[in-house]
Amino acid sequence: MPHAIDKDTQICMSLAGRPGNTGTRFHNHLYEALGLNYAYKAFTTQDLPAAIGGIRALGIRGCAISMPFKEACIPLLDALDPSATAIESVNTIVNDQGWLTGYNTDFLAIAQLLDSHRISPELSFALRGSGGMAKAVAFALRQAGFRHGHIIARNLASGQALARSIGFGWAAELGALRPQLLINVTPIGMAGDPEGQDLAFPEDAIAQAEVVFDVVALPAETPLIRHARALGKTLISGAEVATLQALEQFVLYTGRRPTPEQVGQAAAYSRQG
Amino acid sequence: MPHAIDKDTQICMSLAGRPGNTGTRFHNHLYEALGLNYAYKAFTTQDLPAAIGGIRALGIRGCAISMPFKEACIPLLDALDPSATAIESVNTIVNDQGWLTGYNTDFLAIAQLLDSHRISPELSFALRGSGGMAKAVAFALRQAGFRHGHIIARNLASGQALARSIGFGWAAELGALRPQLLINVTPIGMAGDPEGQDLAFPEDAIAQAEVVFDVVALPAETPLIRHARALGKTLISGAEVATLQALEQFVLYTGRRPTPEQVGQAAAYSRQG
Repeated sequence: MPHAIDKDTQICMSLAGRPGNTGTRFHNHLYEALGLNYAYKAFTTQDLPAAIGGIRALGIRGCAISMPFKEACIPLLDALDPSATAIESVNTIVNDQGWLTGYNTDFLAIAQLLDSHRISPELSFALRGSGGMAKAVAFALRQAGFRHGHIIARNLASGQALARSIGFGWAAELGALRPQLLINVTPIGMAGDPEGQDLAFPEDAIAQAEVVFDVVALPAETPLIRHARALGKTLISGAEVATLQALEQFVLYTGRRPTPEQVGQAAAYSRQG
Repeated sequence: MPHAIDKDTQICMSLAGRPGNTGTRFHNHLYEALGLNYAYKAFTTQDLPAAIGGIRALGIRGCAISMPFKEACIPLLDALDPSATAIESVNTIVNDQGWLTGYNTDFLAIAQLLDSHRISPELSFALRGSGGMAKAVAFALRQAGFRHGHIIARNLASGQALARSIGFGWAAELGALRPQLLINVTPIGMAGDPEGQDLAFPEDAIAQAEVVFDVVALPAETPLIRHARALGKTLISGAEVATLQALEQFVLYTGRRPTPEQVGQAAAYSRQG
């Protein structure tokens, strides 16, 4: 049973153009599991500066930031963690007595997963996508020491800009490239997407790869992950990224680190919402 | 069990210099009793304009306003209900899609109680006190048609100003006055007050009165109420005011009016906090 809200309850929240229930369920489940006097609520806003000002003035402990606020919130903060400066994108605000620091736990989670799955930076890679999340993945790759790879993006402007800013190659299509690490950071394979049943890479490229990393988190088992799993590839899934980034938010807000079992239960519960 | 918080949960809150748990318990208890997807949380702030801006920007449905914000919030609102204009004091903000209207449910509750207890406006009265709540009581008396009475206040400036603004008399002490309606709007008799065991009026004045109204809400049975009850006087208690004003907030926020039994249970629960 959730802790009854009282005057000492710490509030955490999210700001998104289209609020969902996943974060609310993940965090509230863990608050209850750990017996913490916290409560979490998803919000949207038409006035980001006033919303951020309200977070500061009301002493709201933390706030997850989703599209379309990840860049726009930056001038409203007091400090940026290195995880946010590199990619100029904030997905997490921590409020320390009115001092707001921006983090990017997507970046932190991706960097941790490349490490924990022991993905060698000597691998060649192709990263498909050029949006905000692609930027987080690309900088995490660079930080991990990856040097040989391409940003694959039909959008010439954003694709070339991302490639240039990190020093990777760029290509409009995968073409004849057959890299060892394939990374999908497009919505292909996402539930509800027009290409939700598609693979983000050709079957023979998947067959020749060693590692497949799909950032799509819903469904947990995307067509790409399912296909690559059947071929025995090393996998990093978007569900792992989503859970780990939310866990890092939880740790930043509460100072507590739940057990892997507790995290797994909260993640499973959050996906039922 | 409380409704699990989700993206559709409506948030109500309070702003006070020293937040308590009474409102949180009262409102959350009723949300649960009525099966409403609402949650209530008490806050404080060092930056009232930013806090009010946050209420607007985050779509927080309603906010109770306590000391020291009741007057200071007025320039930050979009409209005032008549209950708030008369006494220039807001204890409730309702947010209709970003349009903030200030109410004073203390005033509404007092006016209702004078009516429901059938207190004749022909009675002479003495109102002891000259703060914000005394102003609410004095204007409710005037609105109900009371004409014969005194503001009793040692503070000459605020006491005379209040008396003058309404057209009542003023006296520094009760002295030889023996009015039919005695009203205490000082902290005398309040739990924790240095004069918490005292009566706000002399015993022989209580004996000669017909009606005793004590605005002190904690304890529910103050020394004055207990003493007057033993003498068979008609009574209005601060606990009634506190419950009724919170109920009117609840109705403003939710559009739902709980049964008297549900209100009684929520009030009893709120006092356990």
